Amino acid sequence: MNRLYHVPLSPFCRKVRLTLAEKKIEVELVEERYWEQGQDFLRRNPAGKVPILRLNGRLLSESQAICEYIDETVLVPPLVPRDPELRYEMRRLCTWFDDKFHQEVTSKLLYERVNKKLTKEGYPDSKNVKSGSSKIKYHLDYMAWLLDRRSWLAGDVMTLADLTAAAHLSSLDYISDVDWHRHEVVKDWYAKIKSRPSFRTLLADQVPGFPPPRQYTDLDF
Amino acid sequence: MNRLYHVPLSPFCRKVRLTLAEKKIEVELVEERYWEQGQDFLRRNPAGKVPILRLNGRLLSESQAICEYIDETVLVPPLVPRDPELRYEMRRLCTWFDDKFHQEVTSKLLYERVNKKLTKEGYPDSKNVKSGSSKIKYHLDYMAWLLDRRSWLAGDVMTLADLTAAAHLSSLDYISDVDWHRHEVVKDWYAKIKSRPSFRTLLADQVPGFPPPRQYTDLDF
Repeated sequence: MNRLYHVPLSPFCRKVRLTLAEKKIEVELVEERYWEQGQDFLRRNPAGKVPILRLNGRLLSESQAICEYIDETVLVPPLVPRDPELRYEMRRLCTWFDDKFHQEVTSKLLYERVNKKLTKEGYPDSKNVKSGSSKIKYHLDYMAWLLDRRSWLAGDVMTLADLTAAAHLSSLDYISDVDWHRHEVVKDWYAKIKSRPSFRTLLADQVPGFPPPRQYTDLDF
Repeated sequence: MNRLYHVPLSPFCRKVRLTLAEKKIEVELVEERYWEQGQDFLRRNPAGKVPILRLNGRLLSESQAICEYIDETVLVPPLVPRDPELRYEMRRLCTWFDDKFHQEVTSKLLYERVNKKLTKEGYPDSKNVKSGSSKIKYHLDYMAWLLDRRSWLAGDVMTLADLTAAAHLSSLDYISDVDWHRHEVVKDWYAKIKSRPSFRTLLADQVPGFPPPRQYTDLDF
């Protein structure tokens, strides 16, 4: 049985979960409390991070590498375009969210508000939360700028870049940190992704001590 | 004229410089003092990072996306294998070095010792330097473990993973932070890459205030 070792609100795990679901690959989800790293966990991934995917007996790590591998081995539906220009733009945007957005927003909001409590590292640093709350506006503006010119983030078809952005935003939406009223075009884009069957697994997440707000599961948010 | 906006010791810029040189694409190198970010710079890259490559009139950012784009548009020599399993392993290792190694080693040694001085941010934090110096051992051990099983990091051909690792290690070698005596197999791997024509551009770097040690340019180090 294929198995994904994950943490429910981790955007990197969510990106892989969305990719697996889009490709209709069934996996058993196993929550991995990586902050309680045991030898077993480090045997599974020397990098000591989630997600870790056990696929056909092999252990795979690093979400972007995993998602591109899945796309190259399970062709339908394609999540990485064929055209090199589009592939570049898609990869640039995947890094934009997994690196820049993650550093400036996800780590400042989600990790401060949720991970710190789960890992018993203390209380949210209000300076970080404040910085994340202001930076996310700039990122939503950038997404709106792109979506005013394209139907999806990297071009006119949905790609891994959209799943990557949605993975980060959905984790933040779980803690009500996304202002969907800021840009109609971003809200419409998210509504399109949120209503995909592949998204259901994320909407079913429940983190003890952090009940999701009503709009999190609402397709008409 | 193609142009690369870069910082000489940045491993991300070096990775792109190596890729361009392997593909025999000529570029004008323009040093970009990103810490003195002007509007011009941010116009070139909203992410506010180097490298930025102006290629055939377009501005490209994000080193991994740039390198894969170059590989897909200039086919010889191939730096990304065709086989999906090898592609996965190559991408996993690129992330290993650009993310984990960068966080645990490059940022703790190079950024503390060099960048802080260049950007006038003060003195190296000895706690960070100590941590980087101890962590690099574990990474060299991991490379040796891989290279005991394969001729190159991702498999039996040289790939972008080797250039990525070499980009980070070469920057650290410039400040004498790599113990090449720790593993003969790692030293042999680096000697093979260091002697490639594509590497000459890196060996010619001179950072004011930081003269390179003799062994940096020595092919028989």
